[in-house]
Amino acid sequence: MNCIFCQIIQKEAPAEILYETDHVLAMLDIRPIHFGHALVVPKLHCNDFLAVPGESFHDLMRVSQLIARAVVRTYGLEGFNVFSNNGRIAGQSVFHFHMHVVPRYPGDAIRFAPMLKSYTGQTMAEHGERIRGNIQP
Amino acid sequence: MNCIFCQIIQKEAPAEILYETDHVLAMLDIRPIHFGHALVVPKLHCNDFLAVPGESFHDLMRVSQLIARAVVRTYGLEGFNVFSNNGRIAGQSVFHFHMHVVPRYPGDAIRFAPMLKSYTGQTMAEHGERIRGNIQP
Repeated sequence: MNCIFCQIIQKEAPAEILYETDHVLAMLDIRPIHFGHALVVPKLHCNDFLAVPGESFHDLMRVSQLIARAVVRTYGLEGFNVFSNNGRIAGQSVFHFHMHVVPRYPGDAIRFAPMLKSYTGQTMAEHGERIRGNIQP
Repeated sequence: MNCIFCQIIQKEAPAEILYETDHVLAMLDIRPIHFGHALVVPKLHCNDFLAVPGESFHDLMRVSQLIARAVVRTYGLEGFNVFSNNGRIAGQSVFHFHMHVVPRYPGDAIRFAPMLKSYTGQTMAEHGERIRGNIQP
């Protein structure tokens, strides 16, 4: 197993661990956007969000919420982002799913939505129809 | 109740709804980063991620995963982001929590992490200690 996050979960590699449960582990990102930037990872190896096992969902969110609340309190934040990058073109660099919890500061120049589009005429309904046709519960 | 997402959930305002369960509703964002950009919202009103009720966590992630898989299939994507903005300075504009599921394309110039920092010496351990001291399970 060559996955750095699996090695951290197995305590075979060092990390600044913040919290863990049976299903997930939270730690500091070693290359933070801002100090206190944390990662919450499922203990079961999964490449990306599409592969996260259903039994991890509750802990993943509960621990992300605990960490977000703690980070807000620690740094006195007015805002934060919670996000995951899936696929190299989306910014993923470690292929073991991880949820980022990132402190934000006024004027820090991070822009998640640089240019918004608009749907015209029936195009929103058409996109909706196509996506609904691909939902497989 | 002046919340647009609550009105959509109550079917008192229009939206391109993709999926819903007892706890969450998924719809298209009307101002998408890319077409197919979806939002997954808890049905119970909550301002931000810190206020999301625990009983919504499982559905929030399960439905976000269903929608992400459907969007990947619909547009043949190589990547996508799942994120939430919490607080105005973090990009939040509707103060009813919503998880974004956003298609990504090569070269689309969206940068979530413009400049990464490094911890020096003992600073990572110090930040970890401070955050752990603020975790209240």
